[in-house]
Amino acid sequence: VTKIDLSIGDLDKGDFDHYMLKEIFDQPRTISDTYRGRIRANQNEIVLGGLMDVFPRLVEAKRIIIIGCGTSWHAALVAEYLIEEYARVPVEVEYASEFRYRKPIINKDDVVIAISQSGETADTLAALKMAKAKGALIIGICNVVGSSIARETDAGVYTHAGTEIGVASTKAFTAQVTVLTLLAFKLAKGKGEIDQKLYETLIQEMLEIPQKIETILMSHPYIKTVAEKYKDAINALYLGRGYLFPVALEGALKLKEISYMHAEGYAAGEMKHGPIALVDDNLPVVVVSAKDDYYEKVVSNIQEVKARKGNIIAVVTEGDNGLRKMADDLFEIPESHPAVAALLTVVPLQLFAYYIALLRGCDVDQPRNLAKSVTVE
Amino acid sequence: VTKIDLSIGDLDKGDFDHYMLKEIFDQPRTISDTYRGRIRANQNEIVLGGLMDVFPRLVEAKRIIIIGCGTSWHAALVAEYLIEEYARVPVEVEYASEFRYRKPIINKDDVVIAISQSGETADTLAALKMAKAKGALIIGICNVVGSSIARETDAGVYTHAGTEIGVASTKAFTAQVTVLTLLAFKLAKGKGEIDQKLYETLIQEMLEIPQKIETILMSHPYIKTVAEKYKDAINALYLGRGYLFPVALEGALKLKEISYMHAEGYAAGEMKHGPIALVDDNLPVVVVSAKDDYYEKVVSNIQEVKARKGNIIAVVTEGDNGLRKMADDLFEIPESHPAVAALLTVVPLQLFAYYIALLRGCDVDQPRNLAKSVTVE
Repeated sequence: VTKIDLSIGDLDKGDFDHYMLKEIFDQPRTISDTYRGRIRANQNEIVLGGLMDVFPRLVEAKRIIIIGCGTSWHAALVAEYLIEEYARVPVEVEYASEFRYRKPIINKDDVVIAISQSGETADTLAALKMAKAKGALIIGICNVVGSSIARETDAGVYTHAGTEIGVASTKAFTAQVTVLTLLAFKLAKGKGEIDQKLYETLIQEMLEIPQKIETILMSHPYIKTVAEKYKDAINALYLGRGYLFPVALEGALKLKEISYMHAEGYAAGEMKHGPIALVDDNLPVVVVSAKDDYYEKVVSNIQEVKARKGNIIAVVTEGDNGLRKMADDLFEIPESHPAVAALLTVVPLQLFAYYIALLRGCDVDQPRNLAKSVTVE
Repeated sequence: VTKIDLSIGDLDKGDFDHYMLKEIFDQPRTISDTYRGRIRANQNEIVLGGLMDVFPRLVEAKRIIIIGCGTSWHAALVAEYLIEEYARVPVEVEYASEFRYRKPIINKDDVVIAISQSGETADTLAALKMAKAKGALIIGICNVVGSSIARETDAGVYTHAGTEIGVASTKAFTAQVTVLTLLAFKLAKGKGEIDQKLYETLIQEMLEIPQKIETILMSHPYIKTVAEKYKDAINALYLGRGYLFPVALEGALKLKEISYMHAEGYAAGEMKHGPIALVDDNLPVVVVSAKDDYYEKVVSNIQEVKARKGNIIAVVTEGDNGLRKMADDLFEIPESHPAVAALLTVVPLQLFAYYIALLRGCDVDQPRNLAKSVTVE
């Protein structure tokens, strides 16, 4: 299964055993659906129609606050790193459930971005209403057109991921990250923080993502064999740094949601401050890496885990022979710019969680205790 | 063991089986050592001598960034809630290991607070040097006098917790929270955000903490019986909201560090966005609550866990008969103002972790894989 049959509708599993698997495989298409029409034909400009009117206010923002829950909160963390690095605006990411109940500081020149697949997440909706009352510009990033959050915001960008049916979000996450990445690049350009050459390089990197995900998806039989090896584990740690720290969180969340294995994500640098005590020869440690500025630090984290007999599953850039020798198992991803690496590295972790859940006999599309959208507090 | 023998030195366990237990019992004294001399005799003013010269810059701060690792990062999160609520300055809390490697935005009118018990934490030291180079005011909160971080900062406040020997930090954490709480109240007053009456109420609440902790410590035999009940659990979740969200993280970290049980802390509102899938009749869920604005929400979280047959261990305010009926086990704390509740609620969780580790036969003072201070990256 390497090619998506475009005739399969969103409400039809087609040849896939589960909606979640279909949605993972949908991602090359949903990501290109999300950026299509937003990158100009000559690939030198990003156009976010929904933000056109408010863009000057966004460029002037003193601070951007991004709110979300669960997977949307992870997408927000990716955006924090991207916006701070490229557009140089301070970003604060908050759980909607925490933000709404304390007395957050919101000024008129702040911009609040609310992220929700369904557009109906109760805490996120309540939080944005509160921020709106304080005069901040409110931008929504939702998947469901005409949803409550989409209607409450001043402006917004839809993720064109199509209906997501699997309770564990996959294609909605990568669509959110796609929109937020375009927004970060556009804002960086609007603020004059990056030059046209870098801007075009970053656009090009985005355009290459769907094809690179196709390559990753082709490795699904191998990912399944790795899942066989770890399916009976009781716990797991997921580690990442920088842009890939939120990917570690998201990878761990997928495993929790559908396989009920207690996986926890951590910023890799925090490992020595506590979680390394959990490491023994029973604990799989998933390390998300890429060829970026953090590479050497990640290698050192892996050495620490290996010295305590932990099992390493590493997400690495293809051709990374250094990590090949150190890791017990490798998921390779095509080389990319670090700014878009989250979109690639998350895919093998989605498949890994899927196969582990499948092998443990879990109901992948309807995991216990969870609802698709959390519309009550 | 309900009374601390002040003749016992920091380097002597006295009648305690472990340094960690002694340090937990030290807290009434170490907290009062930390605030002594910083609250005026007539209890109407906080004096932080080390910040006197830089206080005007602190009052003018547009943003406060707090960096730390592990337990110090949890103290930073408590401070974020306190400073934003009372002093109305936006606060950003960052892992030192993440902050230093990305290109964080630091302006000359920002204040960076670095927290480290040892004052030698490599990532925190590197991060503050970077922030210093950008012209921000750097404030240190350390326990070890004359440590590298204390020497690198522009100003600072020492926590007078005495030498901490147990690898899992306990009295250093509450001393950090004590200093940060005084700082938040002082800043709130300096900015005119709270009136003298509230200021004095908050000071009074702080002065009552040591005696209230004595009361909690007296319940240690009961906490041990609860630990007996859960010592063989494989996983645990810790949930809290607001000021008590960082306490949930800290309680979970203690258990991880010394008992190697995989405990994870979560903002309670996030539970429905994933972690609730882990809940079954084998999973202890520790809920940290107090009589605060979040109370009703926490009750609702507990109902959700109970509906899925999870076991609830609740930290509650004494006399809370509502939660008494719902929870499987209760750790009661004396009533207090929500602004200081973190200092109380963390104590039963320290004891709970201690007894579980003891009952599992773990080396409490020297847990595997961990060092007391992380002086390498």
